[in-house]
Amino acid sequence: MNYRIDCLQYANWSEKIFLEMREGSVDAVHVTIAYHENFRETVANFEQWNSWFERYPHLIIKGLNASDIELAKQSNRTAIFFGFQNASPIEDDIRLVEILHTLGARFMQLTYNNQSLLGTGCYEPNDSGITRMGKEVIAEMNRVGLVVDMSHSAQQSTLEAIDISQRPIVISHANPSFWHSALRNKSNEVLKALSESGGMLGLSLYPHHLHQGSNCTLESFCNMVADTVELMGIGNVGIGSDLCQGHPDSVVEWMRNGRWTKTLDYGEGSASMAGFPDMPHWFTGNKDFGNIEQGLLNKGFSAQEASAIMGDNWYRFFANNFAAL
Amino acid sequence: MNYRIDCLQYANWSEKIFLEMREGSVDAVHVTIAYHENFRETVANFEQWNSWFERYPHLIIKGLNASDIELAKQSNRTAIFFGFQNASPIEDDIRLVEILHTLGARFMQLTYNNQSLLGTGCYEPNDSGITRMGKEVIAEMNRVGLVVDMSHSAQQSTLEAIDISQRPIVISHANPSFWHSALRNKSNEVLKALSESGGMLGLSLYPHHLHQGSNCTLESFCNMVADTVELMGIGNVGIGSDLCQGHPDSVVEWMRNGRWTKTLDYGEGSASMAGFPDMPHWFTGNKDFGNIEQGLLNKGFSAQEASAIMGDNWYRFFANNFAAL
Repeated sequence: MNYRIDCLQYANWSEKIFLEMREGSVDAVHVTIAYHENFRETVANFEQWNSWFERYPHLIIKGLNASDIELAKQSNRTAIFFGFQNASPIEDDIRLVEILHTLGARFMQLTYNNQSLLGTGCYEPNDSGITRMGKEVIAEMNRVGLVVDMSHSAQQSTLEAIDISQRPIVISHANPSFWHSALRNKSNEVLKALSESGGMLGLSLYPHHLHQGSNCTLESFCNMVADTVELMGIGNVGIGSDLCQGHPDSVVEWMRNGRWTKTLDYGEGSASMAGFPDMPHWFTGNKDFGNIEQGLLNKGFSAQEASAIMGDNWYRFFANNFAAL
Repeated sequence: MNYRIDCLQYANWSEKIFLEMREGSVDAVHVTIAYHENFRETVANFEQWNSWFERYPHLIIKGLNASDIELAKQSNRTAIFFGFQNASPIEDDIRLVEILHTLGARFMQLTYNNQSLLGTGCYEPNDSGITRMGKEVIAEMNRVGLVVDMSHSAQQSTLEAIDISQRPIVISHANPSFWHSALRNKSNEVLKALSESGGMLGLSLYPHHLHQGSNCTLESFCNMVADTVELMGIGNVGIGSDLCQGHPDSVVEWMRNGRWTKTLDYGEGSASMAGFPDMPHWFTGNKDFGNIEQGLLNKGFSAQEASAIMGDNWYRFFANNFAAL
């Protein structure tokens, strides 16, 4: 294997970005198609992607199983896998889990920053853990092969989800808080529990998750990768860049505020830094994945280890977790 | 091949009826899941079927391709294929054609008795043919492998659909009007155009479509089959029983009236005969398909010809028309 897989992006999709994916030899991307969207709005986002698959069949294919990544790689295309950053697409209807999996969903966060019907988000003052419906939905996600993602969840809810889920879960895009303290980054306790249950962490390149933010160096990032591998094991770490390439600042405002507040919420930003932060110069978009791989090799990872982190670990995880048991 | 396939039922589904399907050796059924339902209501009907697939895995499986019929037959189960009797599930959104195909839809009538956004139904006084949106939707249905069904459509709309569609279409449940004159039955002109384009007619057992209604004899039905085969060819005729087994009369009222009228419409019935008519004694439900096959043999069809009519023709049609080109 020698796959390059990014387990979280929400770019401003266009032919230009699909071409950059090819330039960066990205074999597969998990793309977000819902932050606050209800079921019907999420279906409209599937429709939008169907229109891109029709329009750019030479660049992208719909990803349903790991084998689609192999197909994409062999034909010089990128396989697109779908996920939700919130449970809003299932509304209050547990049977929408299977419907959305049939449509192609492969990841769903149980919460996005706030309390949801299923659990508690990382910005809530009180974390009451996984709810009654949350337990039922985790079992249903396990049954059909929709992966639980706790990237934006609070710590107790995350630990409970790891415990309740009968299949390994993911934190698709976050970093360890030992490297950079932030509500979105994760404690060693969470990362240990995650890896011990066979779960995966996707390391983020989003500046608010990075030590020294936009000024983070590639060396610092790769040192953090080495420390995380030390903590979690080489088989449980991948990339989940959280790349929001090409979006105007209005989009981060939607991500943070949805329809849930009338008072502007700045999330990880602030009133004085409300928009998207600048990306580090060594990772500005899809064409730059080679820089990370080179950084890992420079840090002393073997070619096989670097390849595990750049995609092979995700490939194996995808192969085991997207189908019904 | 030796398949038994019914290309239209809308029964009051239950374990009892699934068991009767097995008793009648029915390998596959095209079931209606929408008459007037909008998109979200249709999704709820897919959800209901998912609950039955979970509950009765020893009796039924979800049918997506012809190969699922073979799988069902080998394991003594019935493959369930989904269809809509109206275009209401796609609302005014052409991209829902692909979404619903992904969820499992394999047939869609362009109209149900009335004018739709796509064409004219068989009870309208004026038949204006296939609409602008209708032409676009037929092309999209052709692209993804959703079969056009004109069972409840008016004649000019039907002839135009046959002409516009690049793939063969069906009239899944109706009889020739030369045998029994009714707005729902079809002229020789339509049946000839249908068969010459490779399309299929599913012969109905619904009493309002039968000569002498509930008193229709098996011999009369089989004579009609022979005359229809004479007109259309042995390869273009199958069964589409229109069986509504076990429903209360309130259901036929919903089928006829939906939400489109405040004045009660009796469809093929009348004020004095508003409910479901009695089925002929030789075909009361799923367990009775053997009677029809025996009737065809008695009429003089060879075993191979009877098998073609009882399911093998539908098998071949399913195999060719449910996937993207």
